[in-house]
Amino acid sequence: MRLSDIGEFGLIARFAPRFLERLPAGTVGIGDDCAVLPWTKDRRLLVTTDMLVEGVHFLRAAIPARDLGYKSLAVNLSDIAAMGGRLTAAFLSLGIPACVEVEWLDAFFRGIRDLAAAENVPLLGGDTTKSPGPLVINLAVLGAARRGRIKFRSGARPGDAVVVTGSLGDSAAGLRVVLEKRPRGRDEAALVRRHNRPRPHIPEGAWLAGRKAVTAMMDVSDGIDSDLRRIMERSDCGAAVNLDALPLSALLRRTARRYGWDERELAAAGGEDYCLLATVRRDASAETAAAFERAFGRPLVRIGTITAAGDGLRYFAGGRPAALRRRGFDHFTSKV
Amino acid sequence: MRLSDIGEFGLIARFAPRFLERLPAGTVGIGDDCAVLPWTKDRRLLVTTDMLVEGVHFLRAAIPARDLGYKSLAVNLSDIAAMGGRLTAAFLSLGIPACVEVEWLDAFFRGIRDLAAAENVPLLGGDTTKSPGPLVINLAVLGAARRGRIKFRSGARPGDAVVVTGSLGDSAAGLRVVLEKRPRGRDEAALVRRHNRPRPHIPEGAWLAGRKAVTAMMDVSDGIDSDLRRIMERSDCGAAVNLDALPLSALLRRTARRYGWDERELAAAGGEDYCLLATVRRDASAETAAAFERAFGRPLVRIGTITAAGDGLRYFAGGRPAALRRRGFDHFTSKV
Repeated sequence: MRLSDIGEFGLIARFAPRFLERLPAGTVGIGDDCAVLPWTKDRRLLVTTDMLVEGVHFLRAAIPARDLGYKSLAVNLSDIAAMGGRLTAAFLSLGIPACVEVEWLDAFFRGIRDLAAAENVPLLGGDTTKSPGPLVINLAVLGAARRGRIKFRSGARPGDAVVVTGSLGDSAAGLRVVLEKRPRGRDEAALVRRHNRPRPHIPEGAWLAGRKAVTAMMDVSDGIDSDLRRIMERSDCGAAVNLDALPLSALLRRTARRYGWDERELAAAGGEDYCLLATVRRDASAETAAAFERAFGRPLVRIGTITAAGDGLRYFAGGRPAALRRRGFDHFTSKV
Repeated sequence: MRLSDIGEFGLIARFAPRFLERLPAGTVGIGDDCAVLPWTKDRRLLVTTDMLVEGVHFLRAAIPARDLGYKSLAVNLSDIAAMGGRLTAAFLSLGIPACVEVEWLDAFFRGIRDLAAAENVPLLGGDTTKSPGPLVINLAVLGAARRGRIKFRSGARPGDAVVVTGSLGDSAAGLRVVLEKRPRGRDEAALVRRHNRPRPHIPEGAWLAGRKAVTAMMDVSDGIDSDLRRIMERSDCGAAVNLDALPLSALLRRTARRYGWDERELAAAGGEDYCLLATVRRDASAETAAAFERAFGRPLVRIGTITAAGDGLRYFAGGRPAALRRRGFDHFTSKV
C-alpha cells in the first residue's frame, strides 16, 4: 500500500493508537498541537516537534536563508502558543546537502537567533548531519503552562463562537507572489515577509488560555478549512463559517484585486497564517472579544459558530451557503 | 566555504557559541550528550535529539525496517543513559519518500514500539511529512535525573581510569558483515543483530551517575577513538589507551580471525557500540569496578588512563606505543 493512498492523517490514524495505550498519569500524547507532560505540581511541560523538508515545505531558492531560519523556529513556537504555553527551550536538527555553503548556514542561524532572542527562548542543542538529498530541518520546542490553563482541540461545543487572533490569507498571498514571480512592489514585499517571518501568537495564546470561556484552541498552519476540521474531529462537532467575516488585511485586499486572486480562498484554505483559531462559549464571546481588544489593541474576530456533530464544515456568504474551490493540504496526497 | 572544509565539529564550533550566551540558570546547552534544564527542586530534565538520514546513517536495503525503528530510538535513549538519566518520553519526526510502503512503516513502528515498551518510554508525538529524497528520521527524547547525579564530559582529571560498560567492536563487525555481504552463519547474524538492535545502557548509566568517583561519562557512538577525544577536549586533558585491554567478545574474535579483520581497529574506531565510556577517580576505580560487577554480573573494563592536557590520545599495545590506522568518523568530511 502506498502512502499517497492513505495520506498524512491516515498514517497518523494508523499508528497513533499503538502509542496511546498506557500513557503515564497527567500525560497527553499524539493528537494536539503539543504533547503535555507533568512537570511540577502546578506546571505542565509542553513538547512539539516539526520537520521541514526542502521541496515540500520550502524552496531554498525562494526564501532567504535568514528568513528560513526564522520561520523554522516560528512554526514550532506557534504550536506552544496554540496550547497557551510560555517558551522554555528549542532544539534543532539539520540535514545539510553538500552544496550548502557555510555562509548560507551563517544566515540561517542568524534567522533562528533573531526569533530566539526576540522571544527569549534558548537553543539548547541539536544535531547536524549531511544529507544526500534535500535540506531537512527539524525543530523540537519545549514550553510550560499552568495546569488547568492548557487548551486542547477537543473542547469545542455546539453554539461556541469560532474566532481567530489575526488576519488570514496574507501568508498564502505572499507565497503566491513568490511562486508566480510577481514584481516586488511594497505590498508584494510585505506579503512575502508575512509568509517568510510569521509571528507566533505567544502572548495571545497565553491570554486566551487563561480564559475559562475559551473551549478549544489550535494554530492556523494549514488554513482554517483544514484546521477547523481537526477541532471538529477532536471535539465531535460541526462548524459554520461566514466567509464574509474572515479578517482580511487591506494589503491582501489590494493585492488580490490587482492580480484577480480570490481573497477568501486564500484566507480560508491558504494556510501558514500562524495566528490562533479558538472557540469561545457563546455567553462569554462578546465579553472575551472586548477584553482581547483592550489587551492587544486588535480585534478577536468571530468567523463562525460550532454546530452539531454530523453537520460537517459549512460555509456561508451573503447569508447563503457557499463553497470553497480549494481544500486543505495533505503533504502525502498533494502533487506539490 | 564548503561544509566539508570545516566538518561537523567545525560547524558546531562555529555556531554553538552564539547560542551559549545568557542561558537560564541551571541550564546546560550545546556540547554534551544531552541538554540539562531545571525541572523540580531535586530533578533535572534531560533532552537529546538525533537525525538519521538514509544513505548517511543507514541503507534501507541493508537493515530490516523493524530493526531500523528499534535502532533509531535506541541511539537516542543511549544519550540519556550517557548522562545518567531515566527515560521520560520520545518524539518522532519522519520524512518519508513516496516509494516507502505502508507495510514497511508498519514494521518500522513495530521496532520503535519493541524498544519503547521494553524501556517503558512513551512515544508522545511527532511529525510526518513526505520527503523528495532520502528517508529522514528524527528522534527527540526527554529524560530525568536527580540534581547532582548527572555526569558530563567535562569532569575527567589526569590519573582517572578510563572504563567502558560493554564490549567494543561487535557493532562495527556487524556492519562489515552487511557491507561485505558475508554469509550469515550464526556468528555473523549475531554481530549484525548487535549492529541493528543496540541496547542502550540505561541502568548502567544511572548506576554510574550515582557514584561520586565517576568524573565524566558519554556513550560510545563514533568509537572510543573519536568519543574519548571529546571527553579530552571538554575536560582539557589527554589519555592513554591500552589496546590490549579493549574488551572484545568471543564472537568478534572468532569472526575477525575468520575474515582477517583487525579486531582492535574495529573495537577502537568502529563505533555504534552504545555502551558507556566513563572516567573514574584513581583511588576509587577498583572498588567501583567491583561494585559494578556485583550489580550487573559483567565487568566494568578499564581500557586506559586520563593524562595531562597536551598529551593527546596515545595508544599502547604490548607495553609499547601503538597507532590505529583508521581515525574516528566525521559525516561532513567522510566520503561515505
